[in-house]
Amino acid sequence: MEPQAVSPVSAAAQEVRARFRAGACRPTSGLVPGATQANMVVLPAGWAFDMLLLAQRNPAPMPLLDVTEPGRVTTPWAPDADLRTDLPRYRIWREGELVEEVDDATEHWREDAVAFLLGCSFGFERALLAAGVPVRNIEQGRNVAMYRTSHELEPAGRLRGPLVVSMRPIPAELVATAVQVSAGVPLAHGAPVHVGHPERIGVQDLAAPDYGEATDLHEGDLPVFWPCGVTPQAVLEESRPPWAITHAPGHMFITDVEEGRRPGRPLA
Amino acid sequence: MEPQAVSPVSAAAQEVRARFRAGACRPTSGLVPGATQANMVVLPAGWAFDMLLLAQRNPAPMPLLDVTEPGRVTTPWAPDADLRTDLPRYRIWREGELVEEVDDATEHWREDAVAFLLGCSFGFERALLAAGVPVRNIEQGRNVAMYRTSHELEPAGRLRGPLVVSMRPIPAELVATAVQVSAGVPLAHGAPVHVGHPERIGVQDLAAPDYGEATDLHEGDLPVFWPCGVTPQAVLEESRPPWAITHAPGHMFITDVEEGRRPGRPLA
Repeated sequence: MEPQAVSPVSAAAQEVRARFRAGACRPTSGLVPGATQANMVVLPAGWAFDMLLLAQRNPAPMPLLDVTEPGRVTTPWAPDADLRTDLPRYRIWREGELVEEVDDATEHWREDAVAFLLGCSFGFERALLAAGVPVRNIEQGRNVAMYRTSHELEPAGRLRGPLVVSMRPIPAELVATAVQVSAGVPLAHGAPVHVGHPERIGVQDLAAPDYGEATDLHEGDLPVFWPCGVTPQAVLEESRPPWAITHAPGHMFITDVEEGRRPGRPLA
Repeated sequence: MEPQAVSPVSAAAQEVRARFRAGACRPTSGLVPGATQANMVVLPAGWAFDMLLLAQRNPAPMPLLDVTEPGRVTTPWAPDADLRTDLPRYRIWREGELVEEVDDATEHWREDAVAFLLGCSFGFERALLAAGVPVRNIEQGRNVAMYRTSHELEPAGRLRGPLVVSMRPIPAELVATAVQVSAGVPLAHGAPVHVGHPERIGVQDLAAPDYGEATDLHEGDLPVFWPCGVTPQAVLEESRPPWAITHAPGHMFITDVEEGRRPGRPLA
């Protein structure tokens, strides 16, 4: 084994996670630039095959970064992290109802818990900025706006639900750039699923997002919609597993791994 | 719903599957040019999460095309096919031992069976030929040569085992082309994992493959190794689930879907 270099990204990620573990809480957009951030959903082992199959059938909203073995609370994406404590904010679900938000999920984490880490659109926001595309939710200092759509996911076992999307207003002349840039970022959500007509995907009022905060459009902007990692939370609401834990929308797990990379060994 | 055009590829695939269903048997390399072919492994539902997790952790040898719900014998990759009868040849496994090869797996298919369809390197052989790279196993009319390596997969639950690779001799001056062409074919196995020194990955004798038939190298050829969809069969041997069904090496499931595509609906 060669010793691994400590990157500035992973050092900063460890520092931020330590603050969350100690009780700090804030949305993670823009925190630790360059570090991959992840959505999380935790389910009983008896529901894990269904969720893994749902992700395999719907990879755009649910790009899988890691799945833990039952009872494990660690991941190669951040070897010193504890998934029960190192996110800024958790949601606790029972029978599909959101019952509580907490800063520490330890007492809710069951012995047979299986955690899923899913890629996050924050991964392409930096790439958009680098390509000269404004990111209005960052400019406006708001959590990204997320909406349930009328598009049903391909179901898997007992799990079904609507696609949830995040919306970013994009200047019309930069829509093609935004599509290409986001399509090229691995492990985020890929290209947008819709441009320009929210009502065509069942979104009636941009000012009333189902999750996060509304973002104002500038003159000449089009609303552009990307698959969103909050989708599993809408699935919980429809499918009602006995219990679940998720991140709170916008409050992600910050990994040690640089965007576009994966942890792990090279092949022989 | 718009009516779907019937492609020549899917018509030919249906014709060939009907012959297999009626009892015909032959390796499928070169059959129905342009149709995606798939490896198959079938396991009890109680082992399906482990296998799905293994595939998620080892996507190069196990690129997932589809996973069935327990008891289902159909797939959107070929809607009129029956997975129990439409492959040319099956292997029946018990406790990790290969106990039988059959042309019809119906009587071995249990009620809780979950089938995994995995991408196949035949998908890039046509692309290699189109790029001017000779494919020696096709020239020599032989099943491709496959070897167990010393590289251990990332394990998942009760499943572990070695990476299995297929080998194709490539003229030295075309190795870079072969790497780029195979890396660019989605849903096959991607780029090679090794070029040129078989002993470095634990392959001692090219003349004695673990599966398939040896392929002769021409003067100036290098042996090039790709991750192989027979990998799950080596996993069965090490991990010994109570029962399993697989395709026989080289005897694939021929789907209706053109190479590089996926079945399914476009998003709204």
